[in-house]
Amino acid sequence: MVAILKPGVTDAQIESLVRWFCAKGVETHVSKGKYQTIIGLIGDTSKIDTDLLEGLDIIESAKRVTEPFKSANRKFHPEDSTVKVCEGVAFGGGAFSIIAGPCSVESSEQIISVAEGVKAGGADALRGGAFKPRTSPYDFQGLRGEGIELLLQAKEKTGLPIVTEIMDAQHLELFENVDVIQVGARNMQNFELLKELGKTDKPILLKRGLANTLKELLMSAEYIMAGGNEKVILCERGIRTFETYTRNTLDLAAVPMLKELSHLPVVVDPSHATGRARLVGPMALAACAAGADGIMIEVHNDPENALCDGAQSLTPSQFADLCAQIRKVREAIAE
Amino acid sequence: MVAILKPGVTDAQIESLVRWFCAKGVETHVSKGKYQTIIGLIGDTSKIDTDLLEGLDIIESAKRVTEPFKSANRKFHPEDSTVKVCEGVAFGGGAFSIIAGPCSVESSEQIISVAEGVKAGGADALRGGAFKPRTSPYDFQGLRGEGIELLLQAKEKTGLPIVTEIMDAQHLELFENVDVIQVGARNMQNFELLKELGKTDKPILLKRGLANTLKELLMSAEYIMAGGNEKVILCERGIRTFETYTRNTLDLAAVPMLKELSHLPVVVDPSHATGRARLVGPMALAACAAGADGIMIEVHNDPENALCDGAQSLTPSQFADLCAQIRKVREAIAE
Amino acid sequence: MVAILKPGVTDAQIESLVRWFCAKGVETHVSKGKYQTIIGLIGDTSKIDTDLLEGLDIIESAKRVTEPFKSANRKFHPEDSTVKVCEGVAFGGGAFSIIAGPCSVESSEQIISVAEGVKAGGADALRGGAFKPRTSPYDFQGLRGEGIELLLQAKEKTGLPIVTEIMDAQHLELFENVDVIQVGARNMQNFELLKELGKTDKPILLKRGLANTLKELLMSAEYIMAGGNEKVILCERGIRTFETYTRNTLDLAAVPMLKELSHLPVVVDPSHATGRARLVGPMALAACAAGADGIMIEVHNDPENALCDGAQSLTPSQFADLCAQIRKVREAIAE
Amino acid sequence: MVAILKPGVTDAQIESLVRWFCAKGVETHVSKGKYQTIIGLIGDTSKIDTDLLEGLDIIESAKRVTEPFKSANRKFHPEDSTVKVCEGVAFGGGAFSIIAGPCSVESSEQIISVAEGVKAGGADALRGGAFKPRTSPYDFQGLRGEGIELLLQAKEKTGLPIVTEIMDAQHLELFENVDVIQVGARNMQNFELLKELGKTDKPILLKRGLANTLKELLMSAEYIMAGGNEKVILCERGIRTFETYTRNTLDLAAVPMLKELSHLPVVVDPSHATGRARLVGPMALAACAAGADGIMIEVHNDPENALCDGAQSLTPSQFADLCAQIRKVREAIAE
Repeated sequence: MVAILKPGVTDAQIESLVRWFCAKGVETHVSKGKYQTIIGLIGDTSKIDTDLLEGLDIIESAKRVTEPFKSANRKFHPEDSTVKVCEGVAFGGGAFSIIAGPCSVESSEQIISVAEGVKAGGADALRGGAFKPRTSPYDFQGLRGEGIELLLQAKEKTGLPIVTEIMDAQHLELFENVDVIQVGARNMQNFELLKELGKTDKPILLKRGLANTLKELLMSAEYIMAGGNEKVILCERGIRTFETYTRNTLDLAAVPMLKELSHLPVVVDPSHATGRARLVGPMALAACAAGADGIMIEVHNDPENALCDGAQSLTPSQFADLCAQIRKVREAIAE
Repeated sequence: MVAILKPGVTDAQIESLVRWFCAKGVETHVSKGKYQTIIGLIGDTSKIDTDLLEGLDIIESAKRVTEPFKSANRKFHPEDSTVKVCEGVAFGGGAFSIIAGPCSVESSEQIISVAEGVKAGGADALRGGAFKPRTSPYDFQGLRGEGIELLLQAKEKTGLPIVTEIMDAQHLELFENVDVIQVGARNMQNFELLKELGKTDKPILLKRGLANTLKELLMSAEYIMAGGNEKVILCERGIRTFETYTRNTLDLAAVPMLKELSHLPVVVDPSHATGRARLVGPMALAACAAGADGIMIEVHNDPENALCDGAQSLTPSQFADLCAQIRKVREAIAE
Repeated sequence: MVAILKPGVTDAQIESLVRWFCAKGVETHVSKGKYQTIIGLIGDTSKIDTDLLEGLDIIESAKRVTEPFKSANRKFHPEDSTVKVCEGVAFGGGAFSIIAGPCSVESSEQIISVAEGVKAGGADALRGGAFKPRTSPYDFQGLRGEGIELLLQAKEKTGLPIVTEIMDAQHLELFENVDVIQVGARNMQNFELLKELGKTDKPILLKRGLANTLKELLMSAEYIMAGGNEKVILCERGIRTFETYTRNTLDLAAVPMLKELSHLPVVVDPSHATGRARLVGPMALAACAAGADGIMIEVHNDPENALCDGAQSLTPSQFADLCAQIRKVREAIAE
Repeated sequence: MVAILKPGVTDAQIESLVRWFCAKGVETHVSKGKYQTIIGLIGDTSKIDTDLLEGLDIIESAKRVTEPFKSANRKFHPEDSTVKVCEGVAFGGGAFSIIAGPCSVESSEQIISVAEGVKAGGADALRGGAFKPRTSPYDFQGLRGEGIELLLQAKEKTGLPIVTEIMDAQHLELFENVDVIQVGARNMQNFELLKELGKTDKPILLKRGLANTLKELLMSAEYIMAGGNEKVILCERGIRTFETYTRNTLDLAAVPMLKELSHLPVVVDPSHATGRARLVGPMALAACAAGADGIMIEVHNDPENALCDGAQSLTPSQFADLCAQIRKVREAIAE
């Protein structure tokens, strides 16, 4: 960590600052420049709050030289990590998988028919919401435990591993047979939940929060990894901006940026990000071209129902066509 | 709810749409205009997803005519609500209170000395973090249960009611003697937690999330109220924008806007919003002038420690001066 | 335009509102629903300010049914437009071109060497800044008129058409031999400049402002087209958000969204958006996969100078490799 | 300026970097720390682009130690500046003034009646739009030159100095008798216009752009001051965020923050920021409590016209009441 002092700071102030750092158990390396003084901090600086430092009248700025994330950091783990979900389905380190399914699990018929549809189309895993985070308490909250049961039926029927969202650590045992546990954008900084997930050995699909920086996303991954579970899959799903034509702004530069900072696989969810089916295809292809390790796509259950064309979900046949294009783009960027 | 159809929609499409609405159990009122058709929906439209509707190719736009929040809505509850914390301490309906205390509870001496300091300065309630949401798993996570014990000691010593943050529903019993339970910005949409708090009868200080709209804040209040607990205090604490000189952007227009939309009291936290002690005073006064029902201010424990001047916390004496100014501004805007 | 009235509005209020609309010269179509009234406005509603309407106490909301942009609107011009720059160089309607060059024109040797380098690499047009919008008045402001002269020399040497930015209508005559006039992000709503450009017959590369919506971008294109110049090329170059790892957030969903709303070609500038050379390649490929009609890439002049690796510019050889990959991705998404 | 090198940088790399700095004419002060190296740059570093430096592979980060704004900087000009408009009307250094008037100048009767209304209510200066920046080319663009004539008539009638917006340097001579020239948010970074205004001796009211940081606002002020015109009044008028209930988000922390960074006066415009008349009063009072040197308020011309209640403009009588409250709040925060 480096603290850059303001010009004109007195020696007395510097000494009192150095004493304070020592009290915190960190070594200091003071460099008095011609026109200003810089203090390098060596040792475990995790107890030093940069916000507090920058608030001090005598400090111009303070910055951590090593990112605060360790387990997720590519510097300490240069090779890409591969998160294996089951035989033949993995993310990262060259492995690419497609997750598809409906927004919510509604019934046995529905989830099984969608599961069969997406499997035929080229999906590697089935997604479906059992616990649904809804802005309104009056909106459908999902089938919860029963929804997970239905997903497991679909898994048995199709052999597709399942991905579904958890909203509270108290529900963990219900996820015993779930293959990938998803942490939604709203819970990206639900630290108590992240700690509990760190104690499991299941792959965790961690979605970026609507107003969270890439650094914060990596710090949340760190919460899970610090607990011993290194199977974290990062997911870009759009951030909140002033633009209103699209529901959120999909930040695709996050894909190469995250892969530069971290060895963890990065998946992209174009369905929630855009909120419009017509944009899902182009954004899914763009995500592949940007180097994503996987794509998560919403596919709905009644292709007949013209009503839903245009909504954020694709029909199974639109999904199958997209999978074919995805393969082509992946080949184009290969080597 | 009103659905405005795109020009050129066929009768067949309209009929199929109407049938779909009926299937959802809502009555329709079709008005075919000269140049376009509008469908009014009557009945319980909570099951209709406006995002889905707007995604439909034949729909220009869809909007709820009545806001989706009911219990928090001023329309159905014209009078200001007053949330009473204890004898002599309340928020809203003319009642104004000041909450003050340190960011974290560190020790018995610390919290008691700050409690006595802020009480002397003019605080009505004591705040202090026992469970601390930290971006990094390596940062101090708070004294947790023990921290609450220390707050209760300070309460006994000074008589100040205490306000402290909860991070997980599993910790609820630890909050039995806490006077106001705070939900932090990161948990504003932790819906499972909100539901549990709805079952308690404690005042809840609900902080706005960093990327949440006022409508979402009110919907989260609705989660608590729908459970039966109407004692919700809304808190504006800054949103995340591109500006970097201040930690967050304090949205003071939220105060009159929330009070127009809702009958719930609104408190402002200028300390976290700005992250700079020199801005806390001006923003606290501005919040009062804007009509806030309370202010929450961070006051730290070692006034002697020059190191902390400039940080986001005020010293007890700076706090006392601010309380005097707050009283003056409140008088100026009275009548 | 449709005005949705609030519940409980009296007939007298409705009549006064209708009279007011008539005074503005628009016909009204009142539809009194069971629970609320909707007024459809027919005729030239461009004089009606929706912000004013929404401010009225009796109005729930007001929205334009037809987008306010006409010339740029795909509804009235279903075919893609092709903007031809010169023989063999065009954007849109299937035509795809790559613009490349240095951030600033510095000298004759520099611009000619870069021009030859990018031409060899696969560029269709040369970009270079002569007038430089700089945040600081103390920063290099560009060679201005002389810079344009140097670009014209490079054009003569290589045959590449040139693209360069204008900052003030008073400089227009200096652009007489420029092939494409660029309007920078900061001037996207410099309406007096847009009006002047509407009187020219030159292709205009219109960059999206840092905080502008897609609708505003199309309205600015409309300013140029309303003046008679239909040769507008839209350019997505990133918007400003809270994320700090990348200089801006490249909004690639803008590509398919703009193409759905408008018939104008859309170009993407990944260099300014990301500010990091290592992200330029992935984002350029992603833009192609998303359907962009062209890419604009910064290429610098001293490949030897190790100092600049990592900056936002690519070296000529990195650029040549990228052009090859771009061709592959374009083939992959063809048909 | 300070450049912090990445760990593990070789001496050869450091030497080449130092040579490069020398070539740019800046002295270097290399401090090799135990674990990393920091290079201090002395001399005129304005030619060094920090973005370029931070892009270098060997550089961890680079930051200017002295802000890039000089003339506007409080460090070099500790006293508040007072910008005098005319006898009895000034901003800053204790002087506080209220600017009021209609959004657009429409007719002689209108502007004179509003001018008399706001003068009676307590305004110190009259505002009115002659040149109107409109998102749509089809919207009313203002009376332009004729509008300025009408403002001058109102000035003669009432003695109020006038404030009106300029959109292009070519119109400057029309502003000869205007007292304060306003630069709108959309032109905050129209650098060619700022340079021209720097050659005048008129007070300039510089509005913050919708996506501009406080630093960028000060740099734009610097453009004007560098030209010799030090009479700059900064204006906070809201920034663009995801919140939709208010038109923009008024950033009141900008007031104390700007006054800490600069000696220039700061004015607040709550009308455009909120877009709702009911919020204008509370936000105007909040701005005063935050320490603003002036307020700019929209007042419309037909108090009888019930239609406009609720719009962003106040009626003359609402304005008069607000002026009385403003005086009270200013007294409350005095001393």
